[in-house]
Amino acid sequence: MKIIKETFFYRSELYHEIPELKVYKTKENLSLMELPYQTNLDFEKTSDKIKHANINRYPSLDTNLIKEKLCESDGIIYDDNILLGNGLLEIIQTILLSFSTDKTTIIIPDPSFFMFTRLSKICRVNICKIPLIKKFDIDVFGFIQASKKYQNPIIIIDNPNNPTGSLFKKQDLKLIAENCNCPIIIDEAYIAYSKDNSSALSFIMNYDNVIVLRSFSKIGFAGLRFGYLISNSDMVSYIKKFSLQYSLTDIKINVLLDILNNNKINLDHINSIKKQRDIIISKISHMEKVFVSKSQANFIFFRIKKYYIYNFLNDLINHGIKINHFPYGYSKITNNSLRFSLGNDITNNIVISLMLKNFK
Amino acid sequence: MKIIKETFFYRSELYHEIPELKVYKTKENLSLMELPYQTNLDFEKTSDKIKHANINRYPSLDTNLIKEKLCESDGIIYDDNILLGNGLLEIIQTILLSFSTDKTTIIIPDPSFFMFTRLSKICRVNICKIPLIKKFDIDVFGFIQASKKYQNPIIIIDNPNNPTGSLFKKQDLKLIAENCNCPIIIDEAYIAYSKDNSSALSFIMNYDNVIVLRSFSKIGFAGLRFGYLISNSDMVSYIKKFSLQYSLTDIKINVLLDILNNNKINLDHINSIKKQRDIIISKISHMEKVFVSKSQANFIFFRIKKYYIYNFLNDLINHGIKINHFPYGYSKITNNSLRFSLGNDITNNIVISLMLKNFK
Repeated sequence: MKIIKETFFYRSELYHEIPELKVYKTKENLSLMELPYQTNLDFEKTSDKIKHANINRYPSLDTNLIKEKLCESDGIIYDDNILLGNGLLEIIQTILLSFSTDKTTIIIPDPSFFMFTRLSKICRVNICKIPLIKKFDIDVFGFIQASKKYQNPIIIIDNPNNPTGSLFKKQDLKLIAENCNCPIIIDEAYIAYSKDNSSALSFIMNYDNVIVLRSFSKIGFAGLRFGYLISNSDMVSYIKKFSLQYSLTDIKINVLLDILNNNKINLDHINSIKKQRDIIISKISHMEKVFVSKSQANFIFFRIKKYYIYNFLNDLINHGIKINHFPYGYSKITNNSLRFSLGNDITNNIVISLMLKNFK
Repeated sequence: MKIIKETFFYRSELYHEIPELKVYKTKENLSLMELPYQTNLDFEKTSDKIKHANINRYPSLDTNLIKEKLCESDGIIYDDNILLGNGLLEIIQTILLSFSTDKTTIIIPDPSFFMFTRLSKICRVNICKIPLIKKFDIDVFGFIQASKKYQNPIIIIDNPNNPTGSLFKKQDLKLIAENCNCPIIIDEAYIAYSKDNSSALSFIMNYDNVIVLRSFSKIGFAGLRFGYLISNSDMVSYIKKFSLQYSLTDIKINVLLDILNNNKINLDHINSIKKQRDIIISKISHMEKVFVSKSQANFIFFRIKKYYIYNFLNDLINHGIKINHFPYGYSKITNNSLRFSLGNDITNNIVISLMLKNFK
């Protein structure tokens, strides 16, 4: 990393603290939680529409057709309950900015999606981490207490949790929504991989403060950069003011319409990943040296004695496979823990056989 | 606008202050500073490449081919002098966040691009406006003085200025770069419409603190949402850490390569706009009641007694033409001022004939 010295780099401390984003060129990257299967996007048909989209003009901002489709599939009633974004990172940053004051504190589970912390620091928002309890469960009382302690709190919870894969009980999230008078963001990027009826989407009918996040990145379209938030119309109208205008191109809107109109989110792919995940978790849970979480996401999270980690990672690298090894101190729970997303059958079999070799 | 009351809308004051973005459905919109001509994007050829871009995977982040091409056309030497973004708004927000502290003050010309103010407020950065002097010229001494007065200053200057169209003297900008020990961002979104050799790009070789912004929005590709910054590699590496990762899709990258490899930025279109602008300015400057600026951008800015404005705007609306009328108090200079970008010949002729009718 470059050492930055000029006096006008006012945030050089944060610059040096934020790790660089590296691009790994591996055969199989299981560290980005992508779906391993491709979907055909019919660009030939879409391109006709795009051609008439007048590239010299700003995007039409007319996203009603997409919102209607999302409403249908998610069972939401009005399109003013939705805000679309160029990926969930853009949406999360916009939310942070909408609530950021000198006194704002974000309250998040520890561990959770690393970008919650990173974006909060960038947006100058204080951070309070509430460790998961027992077997990676959410500390309801801890969240309620923290929300009363801070002046301008915002709660962000990823459900299923990343990196543990834990699915939090709906009743627990409801208790938090009920007892915390602050915005509560539930990031459901991985919800498609959880058992039915796990979503907190219905909360938005009853709780003014709940925002649900959804992404297309984990269900086959990471390359499209598309995510959205769902909440009551006051909340959506509020956050929209703080958003980057014109961030969605008409090209993206037309590709999204192709996906939504032609049902290209492939449930068979998603179900196949869920099945493989459960088989692999059951296999791993028989390995004595390994403690594996009951992941309800498209990845597997497990803990193992430090002693065994490096040989295993080396074996994986020799097969061209990259998985996540969390830096020491990232969180108490992630020390000596590893995470990998489900790949295709061949890759999954290699990972399992290398686990058997190293951990038996 | 919705009135937002819940206590957890911590920034409701700013929410109520920021005007809503309205979508105007007019026949001819001359208020967005777009190029009125279309360019064919060959989606058929591009779509083949996009198909192989694996939409289930995150964007490759491999933007070197684009950077190389931009280096060629802009005469920059290294690709680590460039940071690409999903439109200049994303880039400006990232810059603001990179330098935002409790003590940061942005110093901008008054008037200037309204998003400088809006994004600074959203990012909780103080604002200091230095009014243009004489015939819409930059107040060099005012900028230097302000940069010494504030603790963590950043200077942002749009050149040509928006909305006046003034092109500031290179010597003046050099004086500011030399005498202010703070980041100096020169937004050259409209530079293609200025006389040759107006760009401050060469400054980045000699001044550590200069950042130049470029956009594809005003030169035929507003619908693509693409902008970039150019600076020294330390500055680029610093700002990159604060940016939203993965914001450019491989679709966009391939479309950009089509534009760059096939020289689709149409200089004939740009030159035609410049010619028409100069003809129209010369016509207007003969109208007694109108004071028109010497715009070096793709738009025309003029001042007229309040008395004449509403009939003129009404006539335009009856022809389906929308132009900018600045809200009172936006800036001293913009009171009773109007701005319109050059359209096609027919539209321009209508505007001129309505000016003659109303202002003669």
